Amino acid sequence: MTQTVLVLNGPNLNLLGTREPGIYGAQTLDGVRQLCEAACRQHGLALDFRQSNHEGQLVDWLQEAGAGEAGGKFAGTVLNAAAYTHTSVALRDAIKGAGVSVVELHISNVHAREEFRHHSYLSAVARGVMFGFGTAGYALAIAAVAGWATGEQKPARA
Amino acid sequence: MTQTVLVLNGPNLNLLGTREPGIYGAQTLDGVRQLCEAACRQHGLALDFRQSNHEGQLVDWLQEAGAGEAGGKFAGTVLNAAAYTHTSVALRDAIKGAGVSVVELHISNVHAREEFRHHSYLSAVARGVMFGFGTAGYALAIAAVAGWATGEQKPARA
Amino acid sequence: MTQTVLVLNGPNLNLLGTREPGIYGAQTLDGVRQLCEAACRQHGLALDFRQSNHEGQLVDWLQEAGAGEAGGKFAGTVLNAAAYTHTSVALRDAIKGAGVSVVELHISNVHAREEFRHHSYLSAVARGVMFGFGTAGYALAIAAVAGWATGEQKPARA
Amino acid sequence: MTQTVLVLNGPNLNLLGTREPGIYGAQTLDGVRQLCEAACRQHGLALDFRQSNHEGQLVDWLQEAGAGEAGGKFAGTVLNAAAYTHTSVALRDAIKGAGVSVVELHISNVHAREEFRHHSYLSAVARGVMFGFGTAGYALAIAAVAGWATGEQKPARA
Amino acid sequence: MTQTVLVLNGPNLNLLGTREPGIYGAQTLDGVRQLCEAACRQHGLALDFRQSNHEGQLVDWLQEAGAGEAGGKFAGTVLNAAAYTHTSVALRDAIKGAGVSVVELHISNVHAREEFRHHSYLSAVARGVMFGFGTAGYALAIAAVAGWATGEQKPARA
Amino acid sequence: MTQTVLVLNGPNLNLLGTREPGIYGAQTLDGVRQLCEAACRQHGLALDFRQSNHEGQLVDWLQEAGAGEAGGKFAGTVLNAAAYTHTSVALRDAIKGAGVSVVELHISNVHAREEFRHHSYLSAVARGVMFGFGTAGYALAIAAVAGWATGEQKPARA
Amino acid sequence: MTQTVLVLNGPNLNLLGTREPGIYGAQTLDGVRQLCEAACRQHGLALDFRQSNHEGQLVDWLQEAGAGEAGGKFAGTVLNAAAYTHTSVALRDAIKGAGVSVVELHISNVHAREEFRHHSYLSAVARGVMFGFGTAGYALAIAAVAGWATGEQKPARA
Amino acid sequence: MTQTVLVLNGPNLNLLGTREPGIYGAQTLDGVRQLCEAACRQHGLALDFRQSNHEGQLVDWLQEAGAGEAGGKFAGTVLNAAAYTHTSVALRDAIKGAGVSVVELHISNVHAREEFRHHSYLSAVARGVMFGFGTAGYALAIAAVAGWATGEQKPARA
Amino acid sequence: MTQTVLVLNGPNLNLLGTREPGIYGAQTLDGVRQLCEAACRQHGLALDFRQSNHEGQLVDWLQEAGAGEAGGKFAGTVLNAAAYTHTSVALRDAIKGAGVSVVELHISNVHAREEFRHHSYLSAVARGVMFGFGTAGYALAIAAVAGWATGEQKPARA
Amino acid sequence: MTQTVLVLNGPNLNLLGTREPGIYGAQTLDGVRQLCEAACRQHGLALDFRQSNHEGQLVDWLQEAGAGEAGGKFAGTVLNAAAYTHTSVALRDAIKGAGVSVVELHISNVHAREEFRHHSYLSAVARGVMFGFGTAGYALAIAAVAGWATGEQKPARA
Amino acid sequence: MTQTVLVLNGPNLNLLGTREPGIYGAQTLDGVRQLCEAACRQHGLALDFRQSNHEGQLVDWLQEAGAGEAGGKFAGTVLNAAAYTHTSVALRDAIKGAGVSVVELHISNVHAREEFRHHSYLSAVARGVMFGFGTAGYALAIAAVAGWATGEQKPARA
Amino acid sequence: MTQTVLVLNGPNLNLLGTREPGIYGAQTLDGVRQLCEAACRQHGLALDFRQSNHEGQLVDWLQEAGAGEAGGKFAGTVLNAAAYTHTSVALRDAIKGAGVSVVELHISNVHAREEFRHHSYLSAVARGVMFGFGTAGYALAIAAVAGWATGEQKPARA
Repeated sequence: MTQTVLVLNGPNLNLLGTREPGIYGAQTLDGVRQLCEAACRQHGLALDFRQSNHEGQLVDWLQEAGAGEAGGKFAGTVLNAAAYTHTSVALRDAIKGAGVSVVELHISNVHAREEFRHHSYLSAVARGVMFGFGTAGYALAIAAVAGWATGEQKPARA
Repeated sequence: MTQTVLVLNGPNLNLLGTREPGIYGAQTLDGVRQLCEAACRQHGLALDFRQSNHEGQLVDWLQEAGAGEAGGKFAGTVLNAAAYTHTSVALRDAIKGAGVSVVELHISNVHAREEFRHHSYLSAVARGVMFGFGTAGYALAIAAVAGWATGEQKPARA
Repeated sequence: MTQTVLVLNGPNLNLLGTREPGIYGAQTLDGVRQLCEAACRQHGLALDFRQSNHEGQLVDWLQEAGAGEAGGKFAGTVLNAAAYTHTSVALRDAIKGAGVSVVELHISNVHAREEFRHHSYLSAVARGVMFGFGTAGYALAIAAVAGWATGEQKPARA
Repeated sequence: MTQTVLVLNGPNLNLLGTREPGIYGAQTLDGVRQLCEAACRQHGLALDFRQSNHEGQLVDWLQEAGAGEAGGKFAGTVLNAAAYTHTSVALRDAIKGAGVSVVELHISNVHAREEFRHHSYLSAVARGVMFGFGTAGYALAIAAVAGWATGEQKPARA
Repeated sequence: MTQTVLVLNGPNLNLLGTREPGIYGAQTLDGVRQLCEAACRQHGLALDFRQSNHEGQLVDWLQEAGAGEAGGKFAGTVLNAAAYTHTSVALRDAIKGAGVSVVELHISNVHAREEFRHHSYLSAVARGVMFGFGTAGYALAIAAVAGWATGEQKPARA
Repeated sequence: MTQTVLVLNGPNLNLLGTREPGIYGAQTLDGVRQLCEAACRQHGLALDFRQSNHEGQLVDWLQEAGAGEAGGKFAGTVLNAAAYTHTSVALRDAIKGAGVSVVELHISNVHAREEFRHHSYLSAVARGVMFGFGTAGYALAIAAVAGWATGEQKPARA
Repeated sequence: MTQTVLVLNGPNLNLLGTREPGIYGAQTLDGVRQLCEAACRQHGLALDFRQSNHEGQLVDWLQEAGAGEAGGKFAGTVLNAAAYTHTSVALRDAIKGAGVSVVELHISNVHAREEFRHHSYLSAVARGVMFGFGTAGYALAIAAVAGWATGEQKPARA
Repeated sequence: MTQTVLVLNGPNLNLLGTREPGIYGAQTLDGVRQLCEAACRQHGLALDFRQSNHEGQLVDWLQEAGAGEAGGKFAGTVLNAAAYTHTSVALRDAIKGAGVSVVELHISNVHAREEFRHHSYLSAVARGVMFGFGTAGYALAIAAVAGWATGEQKPARA
Repeated sequence: MTQTVLVLNGPNLNLLGTREPGIYGAQTLDGVRQLCEAACRQHGLALDFRQSNHEGQLVDWLQEAGAGEAGGKFAGTVLNAAAYTHTSVALRDAIKGAGVSVVELHISNVHAREEFRHHSYLSAVARGVMFGFGTAGYALAIAAVAGWATGEQKPARA
Repeated sequence: MTQTVLVLNGPNLNLLGTREPGIYGAQTLDGVRQLCEAACRQHGLALDFRQSNHEGQLVDWLQEAGAGEAGGKFAGTVLNAAAYTHTSVALRDAIKGAGVSVVELHISNVHAREEFRHHSYLSAVARGVMFGFGTAGYALAIAAVAGWATGEQKPARA
Repeated sequence: MTQTVLVLNGPNLNLLGTREPGIYGAQTLDGVRQLCEAACRQHGLALDFRQSNHEGQLVDWLQEAGAGEAGGKFAGTVLNAAAYTHTSVALRDAIKGAGVSVVELHISNVHAREEFRHHSYLSAVARGVMFGFGTAGYALAIAAVAGWATGEQKPARA
Repeated sequence: MTQTVLVLNGPNLNLLGTREPGIYGAQTLDGVRQLCEAACRQHGLALDFRQSNHEGQLVDWLQEAGAGEAGGKFAGTVLNAAAYTHTSVALRDAIKGAGVSVVELHISNVHAREEFRHHSYLSAVARGVMFGFGTAGYALAIAAVAGWATGEQKPARA
């Protein structure tokens, strides 16, 4: 059975490509979806790609992710929580409480931006973290999940 | 001409595989070198792999990296600065001053460990950052550099 | 007329009993609802028991709580705001602005957990606070509300 | 074509006039709407007046505001984000990412209240900020937007 | 054999009912003792009720509590440590070192008072915490201990 | 009798229009005075417009403002205290001690500038605060004072 | 009836005159008692002079002070709490809870010494504070209490 | 030769008795001057009593104080620096640099007021500090200076 | 004449060996006493070994220690102040005020435990500090005091 | 035309040579003026040397400095702002707003003194900073300005 | 086989005895070596004594220490890391990563010196810590290691 | 005998002139050496000019500087420690321990750059500090050392 990578995008990522290209590049969210589909296909995985501006919606989806991972449907989740990264304990609890294997992803180098973007509530409960690789980071994150799926490397969580 | 990926490893990484496998896994540094060689081969790149416990030595190598990158020899540098990540302004200045394109890499999820490991002097001047993927992170980091080399994606630095 | 106790549960509490039993115990949220029904029955009160992952939904419900309390329908509200406890000024304003008599409740001992769980935006506007009693805390909280309802003790708010 | 001023109200502002008159005055939100209509009429502008307790809804509306301003429909946005002012990076990113010209507004003097109300995530990306003028602040804010619309004064953003 | 609830009261609680009724209510400490006796009787438990202004005395009593709990004499301890809550590592060490099952209790809502009363050295080693319920909190705390005694609910300590 | 608006300008505002137009615009202080005169005329008020680089001078004037307001001469005071906003407890005490109704005004968006400009000693004792509207803010501030004068809206001070 | 001034001395003040004369001067505690007797006699007051190294003892005495002041026996209390000044919430609560009129006194200039001596838990609940006048401060403090006794000046407490 | 006590009053103290009597009492500054004259007469000293709202003026006067004290004209200086207490390093340097023997005085209990009034730049270089005794504190401060003048007690400065 | 080593043990150390052996080992306080007697005998010194849960009692004993050391009776004091290490300025003042030569001792490695145990009020006034050597630390501390007694090494105090 | 170096001295520097020679040396301000005249003569520059205790006066002079520098009269300004260095945003704004090329100068090594002297509001807007060279620093600062005047070195401002 | 104690000395300890005798005493590093040899001989142990100013060299040696301890060659390591104590995460990682049993040693009482010397990166991973005993501390530290070697006491690490 | 000025350059300064000319100017380190030679020649001094990326190497050289200064060979040391300025306690200890007379030098205005560059471990032990004068600062620093050598001015160190 083909496993699926769940890619969740948080608030304002639907604006991608239309604003602040100096920070986020010129690619639209639809372009990212196609990039993700290509990356999944390369690893023999399916893609489930979503976006929401609502914190509660992302909590719901992460709970679904946990159930799906437990049931063997999802290989792992790539989460670009955008602004909620820095303010949401609810997302953290969802990841931990629902047992989701998460790659925390940011398009820009958040540590080269405002001070308040240096803190993430999610990093400590994510399995791995990546940022600063532009939209190419989505493909790298999918490659990381693919490694988990094939059992190449499944390190004990710290 | 084949470009090279420079992989620099900082203090105590020569102990890899012999101690604290709960945090760093069971692979030795020599195993990591072989993993990197395979990853480079896959992307048509050469590998230059080094380790040192001396901060000054790493500064020297980063200056060499900058010169090599300017001269077209190096495609980019993967830097696992280990403990110096958290204490070395000199490494930061070397990256910035010598103009090195760096992937900052950590094997473990540093944000799930002691408070003082949450701060990095390097992140703001690195091009991208990755951590928590175990030694598999080296392959992902080399894939990121490969993307730069092939011009697939070279985003403006924030 | 029988008064009602409103019990509001915040994000991820629908996962109760399925994950992290070491922290939250093995009881499901439905089990908690039954426990609350028994407790209310014992005090001659009715129960209105809800859960949501959405901060805005909880704000709406707290406004409803205030109106209901003013109208004599609700004896008081037991609020387990979970993660939003630590991040939501909106819930605080709803409690204060709508004039809700709240018992702030947590299942686990939040002060024995991560530093960021030690701060609550709600405590200063709650009438009373309880945590660390497991799911049995729901019954204790209902007993506290029952005391208010019977007029046994209604201290001036500090 | 008549331009419109978008007035967005955040959580608990629907309670206006019913609670805490010592802080917010006795006017209801509907009264404020009428006050805004009068103010807009005076400046030859139309009014679009909304309220929500949901952070995600406000993000959606701010994105709409940005698109509308780019398309010449909106002259600017008056945003009373209430509690989300102090906790929401998502609203900040929406203002910046969607390019909205915002007057940040508060009815009460937030700097004369609790410490946590002294910090705003929005001020740095708002064009201007006003607080402490009671509900009369809405008319002043609309006057500010009207000045932008007539091109009287459009200063470079700092 | 009837088990006993040990209720320990810290400094200045002997003034109860004579001063600051706005904060602590009008009941005297003797009134609280009677309230506790009634609560214990209701749960089939005995009461041992004490007060001291001396930190060292409270340390002695907590050591006695631990020995008594180990020996099956005490069902648990209700501790209103008053001012020592915020300054005493010695009480914390006594609770932890002597293995006492403690309900930390405060009459007023300490989080609605001075900043320095928001921190407790005891909460992290208490089994549960309650505050803001006035003197009625004593009965609720005894109910919590009674639950432990009957084995209704004995959650693993976080 | 025609009431007067007192407009007080603090240190370096006499440089307006000659330096840093990117931050403060190209208008001179004399231009601002004319703008204020027009605004006052529109509201049937007189203008008293002053500037000083001396903190003590501004204290003297604020005391005069308080006496004048008590005597019905001044409708209110617009205070652009510039740098002294961030360092002067003496101005704060003058406002509070002399009972001056103050609109605190800044031309630029001080919250988009250096960290130390985010704190104001004056905001908590001002009646209202405005910043980021360029020199147009002077007219808005006079409009706010005019509202007080006509009794349109005089909210209780928080 | 002759009223009494209660003078309470805290830990290590019994060492006065024997150690660290550079900080505390060469006078012994008995010398201070005589100095206090002379000062009281001059104001027509009696003296009750005590010292203890035990925090709990000082709490007991302050409760006695409050009762005595309410009963007209004590004109006020001079409290040199020494080290407990900086660490004791219990003394603060005793002063507030028992309603004691206190002059907080220190022999040395505590603000010219270690950082941790700059903070006092007592100052906010004391009626007045004096330090740096050597042992002569005792006479000044008694003069202050005498002023209260004769009703010369009894300011409202802030 | 009769020595003089120099009494310096800082910003806004000329408002004394006209505003905020809840904090400062109903006595005017002229009343305080008379109170000081009486106190000086009682100790056989002359009085020099001044007030200014200007920090630089107070620096000038403190330099004059130091010269006068060195020349035997002044017995000491009573300084109520009001708001400048909390913000002026220049006053501190004047006291230290000019070698002035200062009693730092405040009418109200500054430690029972806003947080920023708890820090004084002057305390560490004052000889003694007094606050919370209302305007009676002026007489007590003059008594302290008188003690220095008669050589009753001249402690080494810490 | 045989000199004596005074060994003072603070709160909860009487529980030694009965609780938390993972932190403190299995030896009882009586075992420690015997260990100390052996160590003293080896150095030709006598032993005076005490324990108290009362801070005031420890202050009394430290004053006795200072007098005894001045009189040649005590060679020095080993102080395991346990919890009071982190909270007691009174013990610090006793050591400094009474002139006691102290070895500050802890059985466990306090720096590997909770953050609040990393700060000691005593270290700066102790002659030397030791921790983490288990109960064997008592013998090492006595050896240090013996070195002082024999004059082998008496370094100037920093 | 001979250019002039403007040397501005802040509060208490008129005391130079009469007090605290351990910190500032024995030279008077008049001696410094002569030293500056010699240094200027050596570089073919004129000298304008002033001192004031008033912050507002220094703001006025800095505005004059900016105008003079723009007009080619002044080669640059040496500013020893003394105490105002640490507290004055107004001086900072004057330097920046009037475009003055400033050497910030201190006689003593301010970083070897009190903590509050380590922060300067001026350094970030000064062209260069010097401290710890005694009064000889004035000559070095004039040499720096002379370098600017001769165009030897005029680096871009960071 | 005779076991060896490894004694490692960090930066500037080669200056011992030549500078700052008030802090470090008059003994040279060679004198310390002889003192250590005597102490080792007394316990039947050999000595390996080294010094380096290079952080990387100390990392190398600590890795050698770990290997040697695992192989039974070293009984333990005494580490006086001097300045690197406060700044080196690399040394901490070497101790932890290489599994070295370390006594952290300082000659002076570091807690009686500058604030930045109060924090040690090493204490949490050292087995025991000693400071303030002058050079005699080396003998005490060797005695501690000897206790480990003879198995007298090998406490579980916290 | 001609005295020598030792000029020590820290990490990455060998890159001078090749990178970040906006911050450091276009001059190479060799150009700086020539500039220093000219400056020394002008003052009748010799030059010893070095650079290293290794902290330990700089410690060695500072110890050599101290010995050379004691022996009359060196007139003083100019130290541009670059990145180690902000992180190295070892350099500080070397300066203090070896008794080196140091001018701390930075080419750029470090206070106009990142926050972490505002703190220097070296300033408190340097004799004087200079920054922001570009490479011309080297000549000014040598002039300062020359002043020491000729005895023109040798102020007591604060």
